[in-house]
Amino acid sequence: MRDVFALTAELVGVPSPSYAEGPLVDLIEARLRAAPHLEVTRIGDNLVARTNLGRRQRVVLAGHTDTVPANGNEVPRIEGDWLGGVGSADMKGGLAVMLDAALHATEPVHDCTYVFYAREEVASADSGLAEVLDARPDLLVGDIAILGEPTDGAIEAGCQGSLRVRVTLRGARAHPARPWMGRNAVHRLGPLLTQLAVYQSRRPVLSGCEYRESMLALSVEGGVAGNVVPDEATIVIGHRFAPDRTPEQAVEEVQRVLSEHLEPDDGFEVVDLAAAAPPAVDHPLLAGMIQRHHLEVRAKLGWTDVARFSAIGVPAVNFGPGDATLAHTAEERVSRGSVERVGEVIADLLGTPATSPSDPMDGSDGSTRS
Amino acid sequence: MRDVFALTAELVGVPSPSYAEGPLVDLIEARLRAAPHLEVTRIGDNLVARTNLGRRQRVVLAGHTDTVPANGNEVPRIEGDWLGGVGSADMKGGLAVMLDAALHATEPVHDCTYVFYAREEVASADSGLAEVLDARPDLLVGDIAILGEPTDGAIEAGCQGSLRVRVTLRGARAHPARPWMGRNAVHRLGPLLTQLAVYQSRRPVLSGCEYRESMLALSVEGGVAGNVVPDEATIVIGHRFAPDRTPEQAVEEVQRVLSEHLEPDDGFEVVDLAAAAPPAVDHPLLAGMIQRHHLEVRAKLGWTDVARFSAIGVPAVNFGPGDATLAHTAEERVSRGSVERVGEVIADLLGTPATSPSDPMDGSDGSTRS
Repeated sequence: MRDVFALTAELVGVPSPSYAEGPLVDLIEARLRAAPHLEVTRIGDNLVARTNLGRRQRVVLAGHTDTVPANGNEVPRIEGDWLGGVGSADMKGGLAVMLDAALHATEPVHDCTYVFYAREEVASADSGLAEVLDARPDLLVGDIAILGEPTDGAIEAGCQGSLRVRVTLRGARAHPARPWMGRNAVHRLGPLLTQLAVYQSRRPVLSGCEYRESMLALSVEGGVAGNVVPDEATIVIGHRFAPDRTPEQAVEEVQRVLSEHLEPDDGFEVVDLAAAAPPAVDHPLLAGMIQRHHLEVRAKLGWTDVARFSAIGVPAVNFGPGDATLAHTAEERVSRGSVERVGEVIADLLGTPATSPSDPMDGSDGSTRS
Repeated sequence: MRDVFALTAELVGVPSPSYAEGPLVDLIEARLRAAPHLEVTRIGDNLVARTNLGRRQRVVLAGHTDTVPANGNEVPRIEGDWLGGVGSADMKGGLAVMLDAALHATEPVHDCTYVFYAREEVASADSGLAEVLDARPDLLVGDIAILGEPTDGAIEAGCQGSLRVRVTLRGARAHPARPWMGRNAVHRLGPLLTQLAVYQSRRPVLSGCEYRESMLALSVEGGVAGNVVPDEATIVIGHRFAPDRTPEQAVEEVQRVLSEHLEPDDGFEVVDLAAAAPPAVDHPLLAGMIQRHHLEVRAKLGWTDVARFSAIGVPAVNFGPGDATLAHTAEERVSRGSVERVGEVIADLLGTPATSPSDPMDGSDGSTRS
């Protein structure tokens, strides 16, 4: 019997911090290339393995190979049914499920595309998935995509969009003993920050998922010297917006909130803008999977790579083993049960034998998702 | 006839930016040492020249030799009765008056101390006057002190104190998509900045001089990264306080204003605190000088070195040629009339012939100061 939990431990044992994923990618590539039913393409440190069985539908399983830097937890440690170590939850458990499926689902009911990509934990501009999208977008086409990010076996649907705006408030310098001769730009931040603090965010429900927007100050900066009334203050404002809003509407919302605080000489600059992705859980393949396994479904409030798939027309969700709240901490770990449950759901989706017969698939009973 | 305006131009012609006053100090030292009625002491780049005539009272005339960096105006330029160039107003006009008096007032009615000190335009810790105070405080003792800072022939009385406080507001980090899981420290700045913006300052009248206090934000800083709700925000608050308040009272005033915004885990740190100096214009020597010459008297709102004299018990005022609002600008300049008028007042104070007989001293007419 295949042991996807042991495979997870093996993957954790090959360090792969961002920008140094090479050895892990080499290992995965060697295994994929040994499987005759897969067509394997390597683009930089990214791998795409595909079946070409002429099935009516195609499922994309995707996950990032990199981890954040280790935090005293570079050596994998197994204690009973728990595996600790950097990347165990985020997301080598998910990679193990993907790799296991790729190697053993030789006759899946849907064609499959397995995407192992580099540099997710770093700046978006360095994303390995973006690199593949640039070079070979055709390789990423599918009917649905599932990203194996740690959701502890729940479906995290779609994702909210993310906007960052830099606002510069202007004033006029003066001596601090005669501040009335100038205009204090830092003081102008006061009412703006107060308005952000009481911002009432929308909580739209889409496909049964409640999103929750936010708008907040991410940073402020201002000041010339100890003997000058500051003539400039900058604030970076972050806005997370639900999938029922376009990026343009998100910018308009920030402008609306700022409108009573900005003057013609002030600055307003969009420094980062990423679209949201709709929940996608109404797609028949995903809806069936959710129903058959009674998967918990919740809205994804942060931005994830599902948005990149959504942007090319592939409905996508996050679904993987491991607790995201432990990711990026020294306590990062994943349980055998979590990895195996996700493996079983994927195996069932692909119509192939599960990795473990100990927890037989529950038949559809028509229950609704939570 | 001595030409104190020409002497000003000569001094402007010897560049003396802060920390590079040496050549100018050498020039002044050579002239002072050539005057047998003066006892000259050099301490670093500071000079103290004293008469020792056994007079009942001693007048201290003090001025700084350094200038701010040149701003395209390093070469002195005379146009009619105007002299332009860096340091012309701040304060080589005042130095010329001092040097002229030192060399020619061989039999003053009061003993005289002339202090030429370095590094006034830079951090207080580097002050040449402080260096002299540390090394030889006895050399600075006197009944009154007059600093030749540019006041355009008015008396700027005393000075306000200066306090800077760094306040650190704390919060709790969270993901910007779930800000309600943390606490945004930058948002906490909002009501504090708003309160500073509407701060009602005191305007006490002391010895006929109206002071005007201020309290303001000098700088703010906060922010961790684009994907973190900030857990810390710092603000530097400046407070200028009138001479009827002690430094301790000034700190209490800032604490009072902050009281409703600070919590036990927040930080409050005094980073700079300089005492105020009382107006001193009621001292008979100064009161007589003001009355005889109908000098305008106004409160000094900024902090100046008069506070260092005041701290050692020497009542002090600012009084010199040149327009302070042009100091530190490319347009810095001083007029012949301004230098000569101040020279005449000083000569009269010392009971010695004025530099120019063209504008005879006005006798006392009992008029009050403006």
